Amino acid sequence: MALLSPSRRLRRTPFSDGVEAAGVKAYTIYNHMLLPTVFRSVQEDYHHLKSAVQIWDVSCERQVELRGPDAGRLMQMLTPRDLRKMQVGQCFYVPIVDETGGMLNDPVAVKVTEDRWWISIADSDLLYWVKAIAHGWRLDVLVDEPDISPLGIQGPKAEELMARVFGDSIKGVGFFRFGWFEFQGRDLLIARSGYSKQGGFEIYVEGSDIGMPLWNALMEAGKDLDVHAGCPNLIERIEGGLLSYGNDMTDDNTPHECGLGRFCDTQTAIGCIGRDALLRVAKEGPIQQVRAIAIDGDAVPACDRWWPILAKGKKVGQVTSAAWSPDFNTNVSIGMVRMTHWDADTAIQVQTPDGLRDAAVYEKFWI
Amino acid sequence: MALLSPSRRLRRTPFSDGVEAAGVKAYTIYNHMLLPTVFRSVQEDYHHLKSAVQIWDVSCERQVELRGPDAGRLMQMLTPRDLRKMQVGQCFYVPIVDETGGMLNDPVAVKVTEDRWWISIADSDLLYWVKAIAHGWRLDVLVDEPDISPLGIQGPKAEELMARVFGDSIKGVGFFRFGWFEFQGRDLLIARSGYSKQGGFEIYVEGSDIGMPLWNALMEAGKDLDVHAGCPNLIERIEGGLLSYGNDMTDDNTPHECGLGRFCDTQTAIGCIGRDALLRVAKEGPIQQVRAIAIDGDAVPACDRWWPILAKGKKVGQVTSAAWSPDFNTNVSIGMVRMTHWDADTAIQVQTPDGLRDAAVYEKFWI
Repeated sequence: MALLSPSRRLRRTPFSDGVEAAGVKAYTIYNHMLLPTVFRSVQEDYHHLKSAVQIWDVSCERQVELRGPDAGRLMQMLTPRDLRKMQVGQCFYVPIVDETGGMLNDPVAVKVTEDRWWISIADSDLLYWVKAIAHGWRLDVLVDEPDISPLGIQGPKAEELMARVFGDSIKGVGFFRFGWFEFQGRDLLIARSGYSKQGGFEIYVEGSDIGMPLWNALMEAGKDLDVHAGCPNLIERIEGGLLSYGNDMTDDNTPHECGLGRFCDTQTAIGCIGRDALLRVAKEGPIQQVRAIAIDGDAVPACDRWWPILAKGKKVGQVTSAAWSPDFNTNVSIGMVRMTHWDADTAIQVQTPDGLRDAAVYEKFWI
Repeated sequence: MALLSPSRRLRRTPFSDGVEAAGVKAYTIYNHMLLPTVFRSVQEDYHHLKSAVQIWDVSCERQVELRGPDAGRLMQMLTPRDLRKMQVGQCFYVPIVDETGGMLNDPVAVKVTEDRWWISIADSDLLYWVKAIAHGWRLDVLVDEPDISPLGIQGPKAEELMARVFGDSIKGVGFFRFGWFEFQGRDLLIARSGYSKQGGFEIYVEGSDIGMPLWNALMEAGKDLDVHAGCPNLIERIEGGLLSYGNDMTDDNTPHECGLGRFCDTQTAIGCIGRDALLRVAKEGPIQQVRAIAIDGDAVPACDRWWPILAKGKKVGQVTSAAWSPDFNTNVSIGMVRMTHWDADTAIQVQTPDGLRDAAVYEKFWI
């Protein structure tokens, strides 16, 4: 692995001191911010995530805040998902598209109040898009990046740990719903959500000053639960089919290509920018789509560029994320495959850096 | 230094194979792309840059292309710099501001033809801002990120090397002007510009396929000039007062605070978004501004967060970039200083990670 040169531009987080003390081994950069990728090893972190509980510094999930009378209207302009029935207290995974239907981001929208929304973003400066749309359409809304840094609590013992710090009422929070919970006199929005399939919560830590006190309180309360600093895990997120913006999709792709058609209510999402373009796709369907792909052979190297998917020597797609899975004893991967070859069990080949490998399209992701 | 985990999201460039073969030691991430930071060592690279010629993979300076009848109008909406007298063939350094006058980026605008512009961007997704402004204002313009990857040729021997590959006519290209030059049957836009004070060129390499052939041709032609792979050098750019977006300024800052008031023709830049806010600043002046600051003592550690600037124990600013300068035998740095303390020779103190240091505000940058 290459070294990463430090600079202020690669922003630290309210939890960076804790992350360093926990022995972080590597980072990626996400929204101009440090995101840990390895603590003990990707495999050790993986087994631990599936068996215990981890604290994740996901501050890089920056928030775009919409406030004001037009906040709801603006939010609907950004996404083809119909938001009319969304209640305060809910979180929705929302594809965000440009006027051509190309994916700009795949965040979680949080309806804080009727006229206040947070968009918890993936890796692109969605703030610039939203601010300019609000400006160009002369909407009555303030758009900002507030001082909010999400902290993920993930793993099978996450609920137990959270109950110890925030009380048993946390157990009543439903999936992709949130409540308000007190910590050191501060009310924090906590949602049952997160970038793993192991269950858990995301704490929207408002105010950098309470970052480390909260980190320490969780570490202290979870000692006997084997709590450990962790991070989104490459293996686990591929097994679970959790897409990564910039890896598995870009602004070249429509939500339908990304398998996110179920989040596109193109008929009813009135006002959505890009709706015209997507109506066409919704009718005819995409000609390529994201698929789970198992790649034969030993552990593949790091997927730092797309790998061609071949059938009879012809390119029929590309793999964009891949890792060896200890639990499924194969290389799990995510790729975009043309419709001619996207059916389950289709035999394909993947051009990896160390040679051509046999591979197969899977019906579903692994977990 | 920490390790950087590879992924497709941290995009490789058309020159990455050459960069790796040249023994790159570290990277930063810039516009979701790999930007080398060290080859031999920051100090060795620095001395070499000032004495020979280097080839820089600055593909991360992505281009935002504006094409169509409203391209010029849109370009003027983005910046307070008056573009009316700008000719085809010129490059302008342009602050880009939001509706409050906050800096969104500090790119170089290239007027390719009357209705075609390239914006060679610093580290933020300016594409999102520009696309949404074009959309919201219903402008007749196409906005895209084309397949263009700038390659920098920097150092005192840059002109000699360029003449060998592109012919002597390259010597006629003026500072911040460009011409078209042929390489392997392809016409490439080449400007006399770059992120150093040592002189040189930027080749706008259109078409990834000719990236490595061009890289190799330049390496081959420059053997006896001691050509070497290089990159923007932290020490040299601070000595020269070259600001870095995300380090030395953010969207919290106006161009005037960044010392870019001379690029703000706020009276005449009709149509500029943010003009109203900046008129106020232009009249009253900023209350803090970027300054060159020399920090006493041994070499400072890496500046990975802002360091408080103190006077009589009170915060009067912050240092945002710093490095030991072998040529000036001091720590050179860039900081934002309040007007009460920004005069030359003002004695201040800087709170570095290894203690409080005496420091002084300088009249000008070092080179």
